[in-house]
Amino acid sequence: MKAELLYEGKAKKVYRSSAYSNQLVLSYKNDATAFNGKKKASFIGKGRLNNEISSLIFPYLHERGIRSHFIQRLNDTEQVVLETKIIPLEVVVRNLATGSITKRLGFQERTPFEPALVELFYKNDDLDDPIINDDHALLLTDITSKELREIKVKALEINTALRELFQSINLKLVDFKLEFGRLPDGSIVLSDEISPDTCRLWDMETDAKMDKDVFRQDIGDLVTVYEQILERLEARV
Amino acid sequence: MKAELLYEGKAKKVYRSSAYSNQLVLSYKNDATAFNGKKKASFIGKGRLNNEISSLIFPYLHERGIRSHFIQRLNDTEQVVLETKIIPLEVVVRNLATGSITKRLGFQERTPFEPALVELFYKNDDLDDPIINDDHALLLTDITSKELREIKVKALEINTALRELFQSINLKLVDFKLEFGRLPDGSIVLSDEISPDTCRLWDMETDAKMDKDVFRQDIGDLVTVYEQILERLEARV
Ligand SMILES: Nc1ncnc2c1ncn2[C@@H]1O[C@H](COP(=O)(O)OP(=O)(O)OP(=O)(O)O)[C@@H](O)[C@H]1O
Ligand SMILES: Nc1ncnc2c1ncn2[C@@H]1O[C@H](COP(=O)(O)OP(=O)(O)OP(=O)(O)O)[C@@H](O)[C@H]1O
Ligand SMILES: [Mg+2]
Ligand SMILES: [Mg+2]
Repeated sequence: MKAELLYEGKAKKVYRSSAYSNQLVLSYKNDATAFNGKKKASFIGKGRLNNEISSLIFPYLHERGIRSHFIQRLNDTEQVVLETKIIPLEVVVRNLATGSITKRLGFQERTPFEPALVELFYKNDDLDDPIINDDHALLLTDITSKELREIKVKALEINTALRELFQSINLKLVDFKLEFGRLPDGSIVLSDEISPDTCRLWDMETDAKMDKDVFRQDIGDLVTVYEQILERLEARV
Repeated sequence: MKAELLYEGKAKKVYRSSAYSNQLVLSYKNDATAFNGKKKASFIGKGRLNNEISSLIFPYLHERGIRSHFIQRLNDTEQVVLETKIIPLEVVVRNLATGSITKRLGFQERTPFEPALVELFYKNDDLDDPIINDDHALLLTDITSKELREIKVKALEINTALRELFQSINLKLVDFKLEFGRLPDGSIVLSDEISPDTCRLWDMETDAKMDKDVFRQDIGDLVTVYEQILERLEARV
């Protein structure tokens, strides 16, 4: 199923599919990184857990009318997706203030954002993914202002859908990061991954952090926590 | 004319007017600061030069239909303005890339922005005036989204007017920072100062920097340069 390795990222390897030229195999790695790669570790089982979790989330979103690159789970650690030209934006949606926004702008921890707050970051490792405004996004990418508006609307729709999903398994969706990519026909679809690496999830009863923050802040066992997320998701779907 | 000192900033002292309760006296200081106050010096004559320069620029803008807080020059170093509730935004307009935007986003030095690029920064010394997007501005200030749109339109109108003014005295307007404030009737007007402290100006023939960058980068004598700006402005008006 896999032909040549196209790219090795911090969390995934990207292979061309040997079967279809417009498809990729995303292979989820066990590596965890934080603070733009400055903190690193490896966790046996993490790759499988993120692959399984995202392989449940993308179909759920599809049922809710959200088009994505996802085609299917291939095996324990791999999934097949449509190749897209990734738009170099990290689209962050925040329901509650925590993490960088509290330091950057002085928002009180847990300040609710209603409607959810959308932030754009320029996906550029050399520049440490700086925050940008809409006009920067139009200068730094090939998207039109209409497409940018559509991406933001889509991000908020995804937020609504994901909040419901996580609420149903007793998790608060605090914030998350999305990437979008362009298909050969020009349309833009949700790409990359949705997992506890890219979402902040807090247990609704205990407020325990159930995402990559346990690694960022050394406050729990990453694999145990990700397993919990997968178990709850599997019990629900 | 001056009653009590209300506030001493890095560049100006702000006094209540003894004559009119809705007016202030802005007293321009000789101090220069850069890099959010980390670099400091004092230049005899700077306060006068910035007072004279801004006392020529605000009336010029007024003739071009731009309402501001400016009432009149009072003496060498002071001017009378309407008191406003300053909106805690620094509105930056860029015609050419230079300074922070080249480091922050990787734009090549001198990249032209057409139309001019408008950036918003949250005016908050403790947070080092962080860059923000429109949604942040609506959360962090009391302006409405309509008012934000109007502020940006106004900033671009001011850019057009100032470019013409500076072009006529052989200076390229590279970028500048504006502040806006709210009058008691609720309307929003241009406030603070417009001077070589808040504009980047390059000589059209020699490309020499003729603004606070001579101090930031230690590449020239600030007073000589500001005097040049004032002389050219006086010759023109
Ligand atoms: N459908 C897709 N088509 C093409 N590339 C994709 C697709 N989905 C995800 N990618 C890209 O795969 C790469 C590998 O993912 P990974 O998460 O490991 O990257 P990363 O190390 O986090 O780096 P980055 O900061 O670029 O995300 C990323 O650049 C991601 O944007
Ligand atoms: N019309 C006005 N009414 C009220 N305040 C004003 C008006 N015009 C300017 N100001 C404020 O006067 C203060 C003093 O100006 P100065 O440039 O010295 O401040 P600063 O040290 O640069 O601090 P800041 O970072 O707040 O601008 C600033 O806070 C400015 O916003
Ligand atoms: Mg990634
Ligand atoms: Mg100031």
